[in-house]
Amino acid sequence: MPTQTGLRTPAPQATARARELVEPALRAAVATLHPLPARMAAFSFGWCEADGTPAPSPGGKGVRQAFALLGAEAVGAPEEAAVQAAVAVELVHTFSLVHDDIMDGDERRRHRDAAWKAFGTGPAVLTGDALFALAVQTVAGAGGGHAGRAVAHLADCLGELVRGQADDLLFEDRPWTGPDAVSIPEYEAMAGRKTGALLGCALSLGPVLAGAPALQTGALVEAGRRLGVAFQAVDDLLGIWGDPLTTGKPVHSDLLRRKKTLPVLAAVARGGGATGRELTRLLGSETVPDATAAQRAAALVEAAGGRGFALEEARRHAAAAQACLRGAGLVESATGELVALSAQLLERRL
Amino acid sequence: MPTQTGLRTPAPQATARARELVEPALRAAVATLHPLPARMAAFSFGWCEADGTPAPSPGGKGVRQAFALLGAEAVGAPEEAAVQAAVAVELVHTFSLVHDDIMDGDERRRHRDAAWKAFGTGPAVLTGDALFALAVQTVAGAGGGHAGRAVAHLADCLGELVRGQADDLLFEDRPWTGPDAVSIPEYEAMAGRKTGALLGCALSLGPVLAGAPALQTGALVEAGRRLGVAFQAVDDLLGIWGDPLTTGKPVHSDLLRRKKTLPVLAAVARGGGATGRELTRLLGSETVPDATAAQRAAALVEAAGGRGFALEEARRHAAAAQACLRGAGLVESATGELVALSAQLLERRL
Repeated sequence: MPTQTGLRTPAPQATARARELVEPALRAAVATLHPLPARMAAFSFGWCEADGTPAPSPGGKGVRQAFALLGAEAVGAPEEAAVQAAVAVELVHTFSLVHDDIMDGDERRRHRDAAWKAFGTGPAVLTGDALFALAVQTVAGAGGGHAGRAVAHLADCLGELVRGQADDLLFEDRPWTGPDAVSIPEYEAMAGRKTGALLGCALSLGPVLAGAPALQTGALVEAGRRLGVAFQAVDDLLGIWGDPLTTGKPVHSDLLRRKKTLPVLAAVARGGGATGRELTRLLGSETVPDATAAQRAAALVEAAGGRGFALEEARRHAAAAQACLRGAGLVESATGELVALSAQLLERRL
Repeated sequence: MPTQTGLRTPAPQATARARELVEPALRAAVATLHPLPARMAAFSFGWCEADGTPAPSPGGKGVRQAFALLGAEAVGAPEEAAVQAAVAVELVHTFSLVHDDIMDGDERRRHRDAAWKAFGTGPAVLTGDALFALAVQTVAGAGGGHAGRAVAHLADCLGELVRGQADDLLFEDRPWTGPDAVSIPEYEAMAGRKTGALLGCALSLGPVLAGAPALQTGALVEAGRRLGVAFQAVDDLLGIWGDPLTTGKPVHSDLLRRKKTLPVLAAVARGGGATGRELTRLLGSETVPDATAAQRAAALVEAAGGRGFALEEARRHAAAAQACLRGAGLVESATGELVALSAQLLERRL
């Protein structure tokens, strides 16, 4: 079983190139917002601190931007379509982070306060709304004659995102065992929406804007969905066994919060015997788990095969995503870069 | 000076007809949402109670639906375009109520708990997001060949809404007097966005979906903006002198919260002399206002001419809206109904 190394490899070339191309357009779009949400958005993008001073190392990893550019390249779309799509996807991504942190009560994000902690819940709601509207405006105002179809595509992605978040909220109140327990297929459908819809949108929005055929855009959407499930499985592994220095969250954080994640759901579903019974008792206990209980739960999840299962699922869905990309008659060089980038993203975290 | 009568006149025929036509399509759209936001949305539309039991007298007044249908009729647009536009506008309206109540901390809405009070802040954020995405999906998926332009139009309206809300939030922290005080033109620009953008969208979205010329859709947008300023002025009057039975809020509620509204801003701007000084002192006092202080402030606002000014502004902007409608070569019967409906809405509340 590979262990979490906490290794920080430099961002691959594709992501650096994408950030260089997309970030000026993204900053220009955000600058058109009202000054209040514009400042909070700049904080949420990591460009500045809460008081407006520039951040020392601004920006995210550029993964979605790279997906957007490579997706467009894969269908031979012009760069302009790719950039507008990448900007819209970044806006939607940040909208969803800002609102999800409110819903999930997460106080920290990328080693800093979440937007609602830094500015208050009301202003954070407003910032998300402003980013959401701007994303729609960006796509609706893109040239090329396919903006209408592209906005419909973006709106469908937004609808999927919201469905995934709604499922995730409902999962919290469901039991760990019995007929109402969250099944693995249900969990993976949620992850496909919550995490995968936006990756699918990143891959396919530029192509839709450029008028690519439905066979290709459909394959890109499905590849994104599969990658989303894979990334979610990896995030779930990191939420239990991740290095706090890398994740910015306490060790075993998802177990301390009794979050329903893939390794734990799999362990409970497979468990039987003494291990399974002890795990179920720990998860169902009325005592709030402390560090010792969380450590014991992590060991039980691993012993019951939950860690191995989640790792296998991550690799299985990533392979399915690659098969989607390779079977859709896309430009080979771009597909190759996409496959390499997603493999690198998965493996370097494991 | 007319006084607030609290009279509940029956909804005019146009709004009843509009509700009959639009509500089935609206309910069908909401039924496509995930069950969690769907139930919270049904509560927010007034169709059911928080526990899901049907509401005794469901639904709002149908004003925006009527505007949407009459706006479409005014350019000779087909009914289908009008209905889809009306559905989208209702979705956006309810999105904005749900999120605004979070931002403003308003606990009550239409004599019931606000959505965030009934379900929690996180679920209310999610419900707003779901309604927002559904509105975009509704317009993007409308037929007729102009959906792309219509979504851009809707997105611009959403952007204006957010700007209005951002201005309103910033106004809270600005002083009542001095160079940084909120001016009357600034206040009315905010109201034109926060209240008027959606009315303009209601009037113009069906026409844009049907491919109406920009001269006509522009006039409808401007008429909506002006009507929004007029309605906001009336709401501001009701927020101070409204009958609590009608408004569902305590008497003088906006003064108790020291909200910056048109009558108070006008009174402070005009005030001088003993009245103005006393009012400024009351508004700037560090003591939280009680009922006696609020009653005194209301009397001072009236004595300084704030009540009369707001009433005049409401009528002036309503007249400007009517001039917009009459000068754009629209179908006369529809324009006549729009003018009559807006006059009725304003006057019956005053």
